[in-house]
Amino acid sequence: MTIENLSSNKSFGGWHKQYSHYSKTLNCSMRFAIYLPPQASNGKKVPALYWLSGLTCTDENFMQKAGAHRMAAELGVAIIAPDTSPRGDDVADDEGYDLGKGAGFYVNATEAPWSKHYRMYDYVLNELPALIEDMFPVSDQRSISGHSMGGHGALVLALRNPERFQSVSAFSPISNPVNCPWGKKAFGAYLGKDTASWAEYDASLLMQKASKFVPALVDQGEADNFLTEQLKPEMLEAAAKQSGYPLELNRHEGYDHSYYFIASFIEEHLRFHAKYLNS
Amino acid sequence: MTIENLSSNKSFGGWHKQYSHYSKTLNCSMRFAIYLPPQASNGKKVPALYWLSGLTCTDENFMQKAGAHRMAAELGVAIIAPDTSPRGDDVADDEGYDLGKGAGFYVNATEAPWSKHYRMYDYVLNELPALIEDMFPVSDQRSISGHSMGGHGALVLALRNPERFQSVSAFSPISNPVNCPWGKKAFGAYLGKDTASWAEYDASLLMQKASKFVPALVDQGEADNFLTEQLKPEMLEAAAKQSGYPLELNRHEGYDHSYYFIASFIEEHLRFHAKYLNS
Repeated sequence: MTIENLSSNKSFGGWHKQYSHYSKTLNCSMRFAIYLPPQASNGKKVPALYWLSGLTCTDENFMQKAGAHRMAAELGVAIIAPDTSPRGDDVADDEGYDLGKGAGFYVNATEAPWSKHYRMYDYVLNELPALIEDMFPVSDQRSISGHSMGGHGALVLALRNPERFQSVSAFSPISNPVNCPWGKKAFGAYLGKDTASWAEYDASLLMQKASKFVPALVDQGEADNFLTEQLKPEMLEAAAKQSGYPLELNRHEGYDHSYYFIASFIEEHLRFHAKYLNS
Repeated sequence: MTIENLSSNKSFGGWHKQYSHYSKTLNCSMRFAIYLPPQASNGKKVPALYWLSGLTCTDENFMQKAGAHRMAAELGVAIIAPDTSPRGDDVADDEGYDLGKGAGFYVNATEAPWSKHYRMYDYVLNELPALIEDMFPVSDQRSISGHSMGGHGALVLALRNPERFQSVSAFSPISNPVNCPWGKKAFGAYLGKDTASWAEYDASLLMQKASKFVPALVDQGEADNFLTEQLKPEMLEAAAKQSGYPLELNRHEGYDHSYYFIASFIEEHLRFHAKYLNS
């Protein structure tokens, strides 16, 4: 495994670094960012929070805008932020911001032309953690979080793989993608017209039938422009009620879909994950 | 005075807002951002920290990347971030990133074609605070801070107007612009070849002869690429020694010129200013 270091910035006593590597899962070169807290310099492995970003984002948005390094440094947690899709000139794309590059939706595409590269589900679940745990002082104690499309990805990955994650959280997740315009467009392209396969990538449908529980925290702004048409947190709440899933879902008056909302509550999310990661 | 609200985001219980207005000082339309902490909603006026950004920046960089809202909300301080130069199609510009738009250097230009719009010194000192204190629940208790070119601007404004600012701080300021490539290029264009007028915009030369002291805090990363050629904090230190100026200048091993450095130490700067603003 070879990885190339692209940048390094000291931050809160730890290090923010960007790397590129060739992904066998995605058949292309990929970039990711990692924040290593000061505790990772002591020869000890630190636990990891994987962060999945939303539509149009790269590895940079969360690292630059969430203000998360401060608490990660205090709690001794690494943060890993992958890109949001495969990248490169030969990777299929779409004119819309909500399909193709920057919009991988954390699924394994089965339909042409997407299936050649768009396998973000496998990349985030398997290849990326294996690389991180091989190359960095990061343990296999993993939690996962994300925003919007990335909140959907985090919930789906944790709900389908409860043995792999200690905890999951999301900001403003696309909670019921089979039932909203963003999800229908992306799943229709990546997974095809037969909607039966879509259920495995829908957090509300997965939570409804869940029997193994991963501690889950969701925060949602009530002034979010996408709340009623795209995000539908009420579907996740109803699903949790049905299966008895211990979901903590908080609504916040006045907050929108931006990183200002994430920054305002990222401390609570990091403290939530650290509770389970350090146990 | 009319101002137009361009955006509003709730952040840490307060509000981040962007506005545009016509500036008589700069003869063009300008954008600025303001963070109003929760305390500003109680009918009481809050004190203000004016933040001046560095080369190529707008009002957005600091607000999005510094993670400053958290402490501003805790301490009850408003933050005002102007743009870094006049803007618009009829505003003179240069091909370089270090002259013209995005590079106003917080001076009043005297040379054509710059003198028509480039009067950022007057804008930040007079027009902007007058507008802020007229239109928002913000008092005339003012502190000022900035990064790089903005650190230069903050120091110069406070050193020349000690009665107007309670405290000043800077990250990685251009400390002796008459003596570095960025400063020589900008001052040569804006102020002309006669270097006598340059001294009024040089923090080290001003500090050297200062007799009225504003509490001053400067932080500098030792892994900053611009440290020796452009920033020269040692000149500021020598000037402070000469005049007995109570300058606190801290060097930090491993930190670079990026916003990750600012984010790492912005809490200390806000606490520093709050000490003087709230007294």
